[in-house]
Amino acid sequence: MRNIKIEIEYDGTDFYGWQFQPGLRTVQGDIENALQVIFRNEITIFGAGRTDTGVHARGQVANFLIQHPMPVWTVKAALNGNLAKDVRILSAEEVSESFHARYDAIKRHYSYTITRQEKAIDRHYMWCYKSALDVEQMQHASQLLLGEHDFSAFCQVDEKMKHYRCFVEEIHWEQNGELLILNITANRFLHNMVRIIVGTMINVGRGFTQAADIPQILESRDRSNAGPTIPAKGLCLEKVYYRDGDGNRNGTGGGDEVFY
Amino acid sequence: MRNIKIEIEYDGTDFYGWQFQPGLRTVQGDIENALQVIFRNEITIFGAGRTDTGVHARGQVANFLIQHPMPVWTVKAALNGNLAKDVRILSAEEVSESFHARYDAIKRHYSYTITRQEKAIDRHYMWCYKSALDVEQMQHASQLLLGEHDFSAFCQVDEKMKHYRCFVEEIHWEQNGELLILNITANRFLHNMVRIIVGTMINVGRGFTQAADIPQILESRDRSNAGPTIPAKGLCLEKVYYRDGDGNRNGTGGGDEVFY
Repeated sequence: MRNIKIEIEYDGTDFYGWQFQPGLRTVQGDIENALQVIFRNEITIFGAGRTDTGVHARGQVANFLIQHPMPVWTVKAALNGNLAKDVRILSAEEVSESFHARYDAIKRHYSYTITRQEKAIDRHYMWCYKSALDVEQMQHASQLLLGEHDFSAFCQVDEKMKHYRCFVEEIHWEQNGELLILNITANRFLHNMVRIIVGTMINVGRGFTQAADIPQILESRDRSNAGPTIPAKGLCLEKVYYRDGDGNRNGTGGGDEVFY
Repeated sequence: MRNIKIEIEYDGTDFYGWQFQPGLRTVQGDIENALQVIFRNEITIFGAGRTDTGVHARGQVANFLIQHPMPVWTVKAALNGNLAKDVRILSAEEVSESFHARYDAIKRHYSYTITRQEKAIDRHYMWCYKSALDVEQMQHASQLLLGEHDFSAFCQVDEKMKHYRCFVEEIHWEQNGELLILNITANRFLHNMVRIIVGTMINVGRGFTQAADIPQILESRDRSNAGPTIPAKGLCLEKVYYRDGDGNRNGTGGGDEVFY
């Protein structure tokens, strides 16, 4: 079998998230439908991260197996020709048969965009929050999440999870005019993790939570101590990282059971 | 009468342009409807530039006259509360009674965004053009439009126009990753002028037109010598300039009969 790795951009506004759900429009469902049209075969795709309803991606990665000898650049063109304009295949390449987009991912980068003034243009890609925020305190509090921690307090509970440890490699707020953007990179993300982190940091920015409380919130492993889950539309999966460029399986990914 | 100046952002995707047209959704029509709900009165607004179907604005300016004593910040909030999310009032201020958003404008700044790779996110705000372009030649050719010229060759003919002279103060291509953005500032713009300039510059970038031909195209005053009118969705009215910040009428604007 040939293993094809694709990089995908999508506008999550009109999707019920990544993962296939019968009767609902999902990104996985749309791409699998397109593959069925092209190859006249039911083909399952494996995505690196299961983004929720309304979440966007500039660099989602997925893979699928085919037997057809079609050149890989034709696969990209054929997919784009059979997909709606809110999903685009950015690249397609043939990788070793053992490559798995989710299990082999070693880290993911998400962004969350807040606008400080209501916007018409780009309104689907950001969340508007107008109250005054102490960004310096938010920056400081965010740094306390760096490194490996149990993020139970910062996720939606899932009975199937073996553990809640994540290694946060980078977390940083960037101010750009009216926009306030969080960039966060970690080996894995738990369900709603970025949205709860941002909600908690907004509590810090408002002065409702102190930066010094962050270690205790982590240690409590209690979701009720963290801030609210803020809206999906500001969230974007920017990039998924693999050990090497050719997608060879290496088995060292932190990727199992990873949601956004 | 009180004269209110408003700054407006809109996503032009779902509008038949700025100007009121019976039975069609336009930005002017939506704002006038909102004003009627708020003031229970038919109020006409005067916009600085009549953007076409699908054209966006980050800094459109308009004014209207009211008699109601409502504080001006309440006017902004009331308008935003009565408008759809794809139009936002960015600011509202009271100006002298003689101020006119169109006639007093001294210059306008438009941008046109081209993407070199198909995009899902932001696809409504840019036009995709994939063929190789010589951006250096496009930059060079654009500079030949600087200063005052008769732009008859670069506009849709309009019998009502008194003259076709425009003073181009700034014109510059900016490369930002996959994006290629034209910024152009002039005292006035003729109908389809930016879209025809960009279409002509693409012909230069492809090598179909030489930069050295630009002065002859201008002098010919013949629309058929310039390039195609490219799609509206990449175009955005960024900012309208007035002589002073308070909107006092000064009568020196180049603004009469200005279309985008």
